[in-house]
Amino acid sequence: MLSAVIMAGGKGTRFWPLSREKTPKQLLALLGGETMLQAAVSRLEGFIPPERVIVVCGAAGEEQTRAQLPALPPENVVAEPEGRNTAACVALAAMMVKARDPEAMMAVFPADHAIARPAELVRAARALAELIARRPELLCTIGIAPSYPETGYGYIQRGERIGEGLYAVRAFLEKPPLETAARYAASGEHYWNAGMFFWRADAILDAIRRHLPELLTAMAPIEQAIGKERFGKVMREVYPTLPSISIDYAVMEKAGAEGIVAVAAADPGWSDVGSWRALYDLVEAGGDGNRVVDGKLVAVDAPGLLIHARGKTVAVVGAKNLVVVATDDAVLVMDRDRAQEARQVTEKLRELGLTELL
Amino acid sequence: MLSAVIMAGGKGTRFWPLSREKTPKQLLALLGGETMLQAAVSRLEGFIPPERVIVVCGAAGEEQTRAQLPALPPENVVAEPEGRNTAACVALAAMMVKARDPEAMMAVFPADHAIARPAELVRAARALAELIARRPELLCTIGIAPSYPETGYGYIQRGERIGEGLYAVRAFLEKPPLETAARYAASGEHYWNAGMFFWRADAILDAIRRHLPELLTAMAPIEQAIGKERFGKVMREVYPTLPSISIDYAVMEKAGAEGIVAVAAADPGWSDVGSWRALYDLVEAGGDGNRVVDGKLVAVDAPGLLIHARGKTVAVVGAKNLVVVATDDAVLVMDRDRAQEARQVTEKLRELGLTELL
Repeated sequence: MLSAVIMAGGKGTRFWPLSREKTPKQLLALLGGETMLQAAVSRLEGFIPPERVIVVCGAAGEEQTRAQLPALPPENVVAEPEGRNTAACVALAAMMVKARDPEAMMAVFPADHAIARPAELVRAARALAELIARRPELLCTIGIAPSYPETGYGYIQRGERIGEGLYAVRAFLEKPPLETAARYAASGEHYWNAGMFFWRADAILDAIRRHLPELLTAMAPIEQAIGKERFGKVMREVYPTLPSISIDYAVMEKAGAEGIVAVAAADPGWSDVGSWRALYDLVEAGGDGNRVVDGKLVAVDAPGLLIHARGKTVAVVGAKNLVVVATDDAVLVMDRDRAQEARQVTEKLRELGLTELL
Repeated sequence: MLSAVIMAGGKGTRFWPLSREKTPKQLLALLGGETMLQAAVSRLEGFIPPERVIVVCGAAGEEQTRAQLPALPPENVVAEPEGRNTAACVALAAMMVKARDPEAMMAVFPADHAIARPAELVRAARALAELIARRPELLCTIGIAPSYPETGYGYIQRGERIGEGLYAVRAFLEKPPLETAARYAASGEHYWNAGMFFWRADAILDAIRRHLPELLTAMAPIEQAIGKERFGKVMREVYPTLPSISIDYAVMEKAGAEGIVAVAAADPGWSDVGSWRALYDLVEAGGDGNRVVDGKLVAVDAPGLLIHARGKTVAVVGAKNLVVVATDDAVLVMDRDRAQEARQVTEKLRELGLTELL
């Protein structure tokens, strides 16, 4: 049996005023149409059905997460009482998958990334399913062919070829400086680490047991409570006490040294949509060169705009390269190339005590 | 008896998205607090009481005009079924004033101008009341001491001094080119024509009879219907047929040649608030140099802003000299120095068929 786990615990304030504490990025239709979470589930259609999709979300977003995924059985949505990074999240999901089928495989996908060509992602995942069917001990990842020297992502260096588009992993590499990133991007043997994994639930739990045993020890009461009435109560008691560490750092890098990590190369038009600027790049330009996701735009000598306005009409006169976002209680106007500073807005809102806007 | 007539028939699309067909400029609190119409009435407090303030408004804005001025007797608000410029409006108001008191004086003020020092305006008006008590034939205007060479206003050239700050009018001058405007502004004997008048109702009606007799002939049925039940019906039938001409052009310029026009010089901090840029100049800057009339502002490296946002929070990052205006259905982002192009927005909305936003 094959399950998918969607990691939807992100908080994300980079898309304020659309994103709020109760509506983090993955719950937004940043690109219009479906929300990013809904897209993360629906792109698996024909590959992994909703009954076998598990979503791990944050407590603040639980209600909206459930509302956005009515096709999922209620028990498939589980909320972290508190975010504890990806190792705990992966372990929890693996325990849930294994409880249903001790030999199950699971694919792990972040909820808040954009995939332009989902079929290409599914192709890579299917190749990994076949690989793991033969070699159940492997811990696999999907590596994204880099399209430019991004310094904000980790990289995966491939080793020996073990199949069509499949490689052993030589190393997980930290976010590189620009020169190094340029070398990686040109090498043909480095991939962006997009946080997408594929493994048997028992294999990843075994690896965690070897490399981070205290996590599984601490989580034993949670594992025993799966499917029982006390599950929520145990989660609230135990989960916040778990070590907060990423699965990459805690397990994958060490498992790489054990020679049991593989990567499937893929070029699915992936983006982590890390900022309004990144979103700008993903949205197709209209006839006038401006990009309108939501709302109507009247532009007078105003090129290079991104508009996200909840159906409202936005008029821009004599100003260019702006991101204009409107909700019912807030408006953001930002130079498109200053999107890294969006975080300062939420910090200032907190300082001003405008917490109802967060 | 002294009455005031507030001319509130302006349509004005230059303050979109705040101004709409049913909510023209004078019905907005462009400077915060009172609306411009309310301010036009309340600045007369202690000089002319609400019972003697007559407001002539447009049909589209009638309901809101009445709602904004609950202290006015209902019969003091009269709607033009269709705007016919100022001559018809002045004649109508003069007929209403004269019907109550055949010897009454009336002051005429536009509803949509800002006056920083209302006491100075009232001082000038009181001086004119005293002048007219002695010389009831005079048609008077209040001239604004120019503070810079504005090319967008008409000018009044003074002649012989006839009292403290009071002068005969030598000429009404058209909007001048910049060089001429500079000469006027430096001369000490030119004033901005702000469309503010003072006269006896019978005197202006006599002058209209001499210079535009067809207007009074056509308006006879309206005059006869004042105070009667049929007034509204007669207005709707007759008013749209009246000649559309300004009182300046139709009467004042000609009366000037008759030697019966006087001007009271005043410096009341007047502005016609003709654009978002003009409003920017009128609003006091906050500690960070930005100007917030309505709403809250979070500015990150964003100076020179004007914010008018119906209580919403506006964040601006890395963009300067912008006017940002938000309503529930629309947002305007405009370079502060491109305010003359605001009109293009409403034109485009009409082209796009977005008439519900007009």
